[in-house]
Amino acid sequence: MVAAGDSAAFGFAITASLGRARAGVFRTPHGAVETPAFMPVGTLATVKALDPAELHAMHAEMILANAYHLHLRPGDELVRDMGGLHRFMGWHGPILTDSGGFQVFSLASLSAVTEDGVTFRSHLDGSERHFTPEGVMRIEANLGADVIMQFDHVIPGQSAREASADACERSIRWLERCQAEFRRLRGDGPERQALFPIVQGGVYEDLRRAAASRIASAGQWHGVAIGGLSVGESKSAMYHVLDACDDALPRARPRYLMGVGYPEDLLEGVARGVDLFDCVAPTRMGRNGAAFTSFGRLNMKNAEHRTDDRPIEADCGCATCRRFSRAYVRHLIQADEMLGPRLLSVHNVHFLIALMRRARATIADGSFAAWSRDWLSRYHSSPEPV
Amino acid sequence: MVAAGDSAAFGFAITASLGRARAGVFRTPHGAVETPAFMPVGTLATVKALDPAELHAMHAEMILANAYHLHLRPGDELVRDMGGLHRFMGWHGPILTDSGGFQVFSLASLSAVTEDGVTFRSHLDGSERHFTPEGVMRIEANLGADVIMQFDHVIPGQSAREASADACERSIRWLERCQAEFRRLRGDGPERQALFPIVQGGVYEDLRRAAASRIASAGQWHGVAIGGLSVGESKSAMYHVLDACDDALPRARPRYLMGVGYPEDLLEGVARGVDLFDCVAPTRMGRNGAAFTSFGRLNMKNAEHRTDDRPIEADCGCATCRRFSRAYVRHLIQADEMLGPRLLSVHNVHFLIALMRRARATIADGSFAAWSRDWLSRYHSSPEPV
Repeated sequence: MVAAGDSAAFGFAITASLGRARAGVFRTPHGAVETPAFMPVGTLATVKALDPAELHAMHAEMILANAYHLHLRPGDELVRDMGGLHRFMGWHGPILTDSGGFQVFSLASLSAVTEDGVTFRSHLDGSERHFTPEGVMRIEANLGADVIMQFDHVIPGQSAREASADACERSIRWLERCQAEFRRLRGDGPERQALFPIVQGGVYEDLRRAAASRIASAGQWHGVAIGGLSVGESKSAMYHVLDACDDALPRARPRYLMGVGYPEDLLEGVARGVDLFDCVAPTRMGRNGAAFTSFGRLNMKNAEHRTDDRPIEADCGCATCRRFSRAYVRHLIQADEMLGPRLLSVHNVHFLIALMRRARATIADGSFAAWSRDWLSRYHSSPEPV
Repeated sequence: MVAAGDSAAFGFAITASLGRARAGVFRTPHGAVETPAFMPVGTLATVKALDPAELHAMHAEMILANAYHLHLRPGDELVRDMGGLHRFMGWHGPILTDSGGFQVFSLASLSAVTEDGVTFRSHLDGSERHFTPEGVMRIEANLGADVIMQFDHVIPGQSAREASADACERSIRWLERCQAEFRRLRGDGPERQALFPIVQGGVYEDLRRAAASRIASAGQWHGVAIGGLSVGESKSAMYHVLDACDDALPRARPRYLMGVGYPEDLLEGVARGVDLFDCVAPTRMGRNGAAFTSFGRLNMKNAEHRTDDRPIEADCGCATCRRFSRAYVRHLIQADEMLGPRLLSVHNVHFLIALMRRARATIADGSFAAWSRDWLSRYHSSPEPV
């Protein structure tokens, strides 16, 4: 076991490793997270369609929320006044808030990026807003998540080198400002939050490696994120970036691959040393009537499921597959009944969490590489066997 | 205890009574129902927004589904092929199906009512359909609920005497045809379903009394329903109809007041000897952002709840009030998050079930009249006390 010299509030212990893949335990003020782990996304202080009790039942340990969305609605100061995110949303395990860097560049109408920050218009009412690294730290302090992300400059996945380098440099300068404000806000108080830096640099491996090195030497981070991936670039480009960053990042700290993702990306990420993942895919797919299975995705709207008495996945232990048939789930989706997206979201989130738990077990017993290869081979072997 | 001489499959035992109010146990092939009871409505084989596990947790014992809706989608034959409603929807307690009488007259485009049956156009695709008493019995046999309702002729609540008498007479003739087809379908098989007749007759007390008498003498029913109420008539008219039917109905059988309703109607109904109720109100209100409380209804969209840290109702034991604040529920409703209608539906359905459980307890201990009077007085005493 490689135990890092951590403070009381946060810590990361690697319990097993196999090549670059590792199993560990990430400790936070609201509990421990067994890694590798998939973190369900609760953008607006709710993992869409799901209840915290369902998340606990499927062994979710850490969830996300979003500073941009919560700042706009209901307001981060309201959340603070209601006792912070954990209390407000009834989730008493670890929470991570994303900084809004991704949202102001993707969702809002962007007005201007300056060295000071970003001016944009709210996607809700068009009102003009201004985010700075300092302001975002205050928003995330109000929300009160265990892990808070730095404010970063996010660009499209296939951006040119110059734009990538520019955004990467700006993100590092903003990290320093985030860090200063984060320290100021904490003052002499106890360590309740951990600030994670975000490695940017587009698809350029040298930019990524340089950014990772500079970030690693800029502070004693409790964890480091790799951002700006899964935003339009190829999967192989994403894997190359993970390879490029590997040596430059501290091994004794958790690595979080932001906004990723799909089962294949999770397994490829774990093989490359990633410990934490998040993605809206499982709940978004659930609302769209789609299900993950170990033999590929199913569109539950398809007529082939009309009279199919089998569960979505035969050996799945989720609360949906233990009780309901494909025929019933299809009926709910076709009839636009709320229980349909809900049952599919339960299944899909459970699917990714269970996949990471299995990866963790196979890292510990030495079978990860073979299991992962077989799993991916089956996953890509559509059409579905009957 | 008044034990009725019932078959093995169905039975009703009155365990306590107080004036006309009574507490009892209604036995069905899928379990017993403690009465008086509120039955949540699962129109399309799902109580909207809720999971069967949530219904069990709030002590729901019997639920409804709807023959008209399920015939159109996914089809009653599909439900039969999937093992029947209980298995299809994962609800293994008692189920009652409504016959579609109400829906073909309220929801569909009506083409013609003849002595044979009703021709109408589906509200989904405009396709022409024909319901007869015999056809509806076959649909309800396919669905396989424990209790199935006769096909009846439903008219608006303020219909004139002649129209009311005509529909009432037709419903009684259709009951005879339902009964014959019901017996034919069962043949020599075991008793798996009970057919409930429906007393019609509009707001005319003499018509109601006469219909109740004729129905009571037409068969050994396991229960009797009072229909065509809560469809536009005044509340006092509804209560007078209950009074008028009272003597004519068999006391040893459960009485089901269809489509009712609101807390005040439940308590007034219990006082008049009603044992079973159903209504879409608690889930529909949940989807619209409204909550039942013992001091009247709350509109959770109102700004006054924005920073209100209290639960919807302080001493409510539901899964919503035990964990979440009004501020959080309001945020979810404002943000159009699925968890909002879900948490409100949990609260509202729990509210009516708990109200009936309390009524049952006070009938047993003799305090029903005083408790009910105090409860109604508080319920009508809005505005909300802070």
